[in-house]
Amino acid sequence: MTDQQHTGASGAPVLGAHKAYITGSRPDIRVPVRRVHLTDGHAVTLYDTSGPATDPSVTTDVKRGLPPLRRPWIEERHADGTGAVTQLAYARRGEITPEMEFVALREDRSPEFVRDEIAAGRAVLPVNIRHPEAEPMIIGKNFLVKVNANIGNSAITSSIDEEVEKMTWATRWGADTVMDLSTGKDIHTTREWVLRNSPVPIGTVPLYQALEKVGGKAEELSWDVYRETVIEQAEQGVDYMTVHAGVLLRYVPLTARRKTGIVSRGGSIMAAWCLAHHRESFLYTHFAELCEILRAYDITFSLGDGLRPGSIADANDDAQFAELRTLGELNRVARDHDVQTMIEGPGHVPMHKIKENVDLQQEICDEAPFYTLGPLTTDIAPAYDHITSGIGAAMIAWWGTAMLCYVTPKEHLGLPNRDDVKTGVITYKIAAHAADLAKGHPGAQRWDDALSDARFEFRWEDQFNLALDPDTARAFHDETLPAEPAKTAHFCSMCGPKFCSMKISRAVVDKYGPGGDEELTEEQIQQAMLTKSREFAEAGGRVYLPLVD
Amino acid sequence: MTDQQHTGASGAPVLGAHKAYITGSRPDIRVPVRRVHLTDGHAVTLYDTSGPATDPSVTTDVKRGLPPLRRPWIEERHADGTGAVTQLAYARRGEITPEMEFVALREDRSPEFVRDEIAAGRAVLPVNIRHPEAEPMIIGKNFLVKVNANIGNSAITSSIDEEVEKMTWATRWGADTVMDLSTGKDIHTTREWVLRNSPVPIGTVPLYQALEKVGGKAEELSWDVYRETVIEQAEQGVDYMTVHAGVLLRYVPLTARRKTGIVSRGGSIMAAWCLAHHRESFLYTHFAELCEILRAYDITFSLGDGLRPGSIADANDDAQFAELRTLGELNRVARDHDVQTMIEGPGHVPMHKIKENVDLQQEICDEAPFYTLGPLTTDIAPAYDHITSGIGAAMIAWWGTAMLCYVTPKEHLGLPNRDDVKTGVITYKIAAHAADLAKGHPGAQRWDDALSDARFEFRWEDQFNLALDPDTARAFHDETLPAEPAKTAHFCSMCGPKFCSMKISRAVVDKYGPGGDEELTEEQIQQAMLTKSREFAEAGGRVYLPLVD
Repeated sequence: MTDQQHTGASGAPVLGAHKAYITGSRPDIRVPVRRVHLTDGHAVTLYDTSGPATDPSVTTDVKRGLPPLRRPWIEERHADGTGAVTQLAYARRGEITPEMEFVALREDRSPEFVRDEIAAGRAVLPVNIRHPEAEPMIIGKNFLVKVNANIGNSAITSSIDEEVEKMTWATRWGADTVMDLSTGKDIHTTREWVLRNSPVPIGTVPLYQALEKVGGKAEELSWDVYRETVIEQAEQGVDYMTVHAGVLLRYVPLTARRKTGIVSRGGSIMAAWCLAHHRESFLYTHFAELCEILRAYDITFSLGDGLRPGSIADANDDAQFAELRTLGELNRVARDHDVQTMIEGPGHVPMHKIKENVDLQQEICDEAPFYTLGPLTTDIAPAYDHITSGIGAAMIAWWGTAMLCYVTPKEHLGLPNRDDVKTGVITYKIAAHAADLAKGHPGAQRWDDALSDARFEFRWEDQFNLALDPDTARAFHDETLPAEPAKTAHFCSMCGPKFCSMKISRAVVDKYGPGGDEELTEEQIQQAMLTKSREFAEAGGRVYLPLVD
Repeated sequence: MTDQQHTGASGAPVLGAHKAYITGSRPDIRVPVRRVHLTDGHAVTLYDTSGPATDPSVTTDVKRGLPPLRRPWIEERHADGTGAVTQLAYARRGEITPEMEFVALREDRSPEFVRDEIAAGRAVLPVNIRHPEAEPMIIGKNFLVKVNANIGNSAITSSIDEEVEKMTWATRWGADTVMDLSTGKDIHTTREWVLRNSPVPIGTVPLYQALEKVGGKAEELSWDVYRETVIEQAEQGVDYMTVHAGVLLRYVPLTARRKTGIVSRGGSIMAAWCLAHHRESFLYTHFAELCEILRAYDITFSLGDGLRPGSIADANDDAQFAELRTLGELNRVARDHDVQTMIEGPGHVPMHKIKENVDLQQEICDEAPFYTLGPLTTDIAPAYDHITSGIGAAMIAWWGTAMLCYVTPKEHLGLPNRDDVKTGVITYKIAAHAADLAKGHPGAQRWDDALSDARFEFRWEDQFNLALDPDTARAFHDETLPAEPAKTAHFCSMCGPKFCSMKISRAVVDKYGPGGDEELTEEQIQQAMLTKSREFAEAGGRVYLPLVD
């Protein structure tokens, strides 16, 4: 392996892992996995979002784009049917599409379960029929928690190449979807390159490009410009679109007494439009027409929270929850049109107010998948908002949020570079996995267990290779103990060779553990505990044994 | 200000802040604060742990140590009384010590409240009479959540100078206490330098040094060696000591079927001793004698959790909770001796099992302050365990933990360097502050509000200066918009100058906000909300307004 691979170039296998595929009921259903072969002969199979870039047997070329794996499935259905082409429509008709089977294999669930969750609107499978390169994935509270990474150039900085590279980089580290939020020049071309090279669904906010078309003047926006933009992006293959249709004219004044007003870009554009025209939002009044466009491509709605709080002080306020009620209403309209829908959520929320957000969203929006930004649990740490929000993200996901939009260290300060993207994705993969564990997602703990076993058995190489970020884990270890033999050393880098707590634990296991000199049965352990509990209870829970030598 | 100061040398004022003091009822009670003067003429006063190092009017010299601010208070009491010299004893006698008054000013609470919390054992004020340099602080669930940073050389690496520098660096960023966990050579000298230069209480694990004295052979430890070590450290001024007296012989076999056995170094030393001698732990059998020593110096017990889980798989198991029951028993013994006591907690715990830890500890240990390591909420991310554990730390603190022991990015991989120490402290200050907010600690939100106001009003300099880490916030902003005028620009670095959501929000405020063209009264806002709620309710909570142009 070259040095470059060690430092983690986008287009190389992840350190210590092999790309493998699980094949479904037909040979073209091939679900990618990251397989880690351990030194003890076992292998651990992990979810893999990185696409062909990490498969050494596939030659990828940015100019040609990725292979269109879904094309046959889309064409077969096109030849077949006349109804709506959305996964929701198929699910409601009782059909299991290849996409659903793909997702079922990926999540270790039955295809019927996947179909039923989609039919109920509790999960979405965002796949534009014009984006055949995307590997199917599912977003819903009864599946693994997903992570979105935002990329996008702006008027100030960054190029097309950089954005494609950021997208590939983000999926390498686990981004399940990527949103292209470009606002500068070359929006169309940037998106084209990103889509043709993305193994994950791509989301956008069409309003941003529409605004560019009218010279950045919100009041000059119209349904016609917006509609044209949506169709342009639909044709390119955008898989889900954020639509801020819940920002109603009458809600705008509710933000006037806030500490930080309207912080959503889309929300403020629509607020500006409503104020300028003193009319209801065209996104709201034309929502049914919009549903028809999205249905034709199987684009998923991400109903935006334009009035989300931008500070701890504004969390869970009237403006936020008024908009949420409207999103609940629009969710039903979209569903009536067979359009898959998820709902976006906050923002900045202190820990004790987080659960209310999920509970209310699930109630008002008929359990449609919740897709939240963080939330940030405090405002005092610009430059560390991946952490302030990673805390909130883990909690909100545990309580039922289906997808987390990452926050990078540059949030509030500037545009994320490549390192920031990686830090954001890794932080959010941690939050998502911590939530999977807390929700008792079947199989989630296998990963933790494999890594803990490797740690306890001093299998350093396995510990690195199983890490969410093998490159950094290895590099940190090398800083303290750079020599190669240390990788097989039977002590930790914390305690040093003379005394090691893990070593003593091994001695306990050797004595009392399975196959040990004085092996304890499960029954003996339980008996020992029982005796101790009884002592404690008998003394009224206030036992005090005299202290003697 | 020099460049070096900008990059945050330990011995310089924190960027954008001024050191100030609040004086108490006597001139020698001077509570340090970090005061941030804003460009709008206001000032924000923040808790300050950094000691004289950040006061330009004090010349500090590592070789002379810090000024002994508590010496007069200790000497006056010495001249006065004959009873126990612990803050717990004074509190029980109804006395308010200068230390208590200092803490009351620091926390914006009444001195009586401080006294009563200490008297009840719900809070500790760790101050060895031999460490007069320390600025008094308090640890208890009804006060601000505190953060501990671990430093310490090991057999493998690092020097005395480095450890003193790390301690100063940790307190600069907000460490409320520092534990010196040195295990290599020069333990005594390293500790001496750390103590003489530390503005915060210092904790140790005397067992580590005792083990060095017997050549690293756990089985050769004895009460005599341990006792001698405790007295040696007590004389130097150690403020609190971790004692793993809850690892009883009969609990050791309970760890045999664990995934990761005993991961606490102290726990495994005692387990090894118990196994080797097949006798009860000398820390348990001599606990009353130990109380007498600690009482003589007013050293606070930190009853160690030697059987804490070292993996998600082992969380909340029989071994862990059996030890906790014993800690509850020992807590009462310590209290009977007028010795202040806190209880250490895990470890590695998935989110859904965290609350049980606090609830049980509070019940079993009569609300003694809980002091936890993380907990890590997943095992899959070595190199990011400051984040896996920051999530758990915020939650466990919200639910009642009084102090959080930080975890650095090097956890499980190597020894933290200066950068790791800073990252660990900042991450844990975030967790602690997020918990203060969630607990509704009086005044905690003032900091968030001041920063949010600055953000909304484009006062970039104020935003940087109010940040938990002003250096990094400024540096990140400069990466995207390096020019000086950008610091006063009325747009965010995310949206760019042409369109900015904050700008539109300002327009809403100007129109509908206080003093605006169409100012809405609180009543009008409430009325608007009421109308909307009624509409929603009247339609059975399932309103659907026809979508018209």
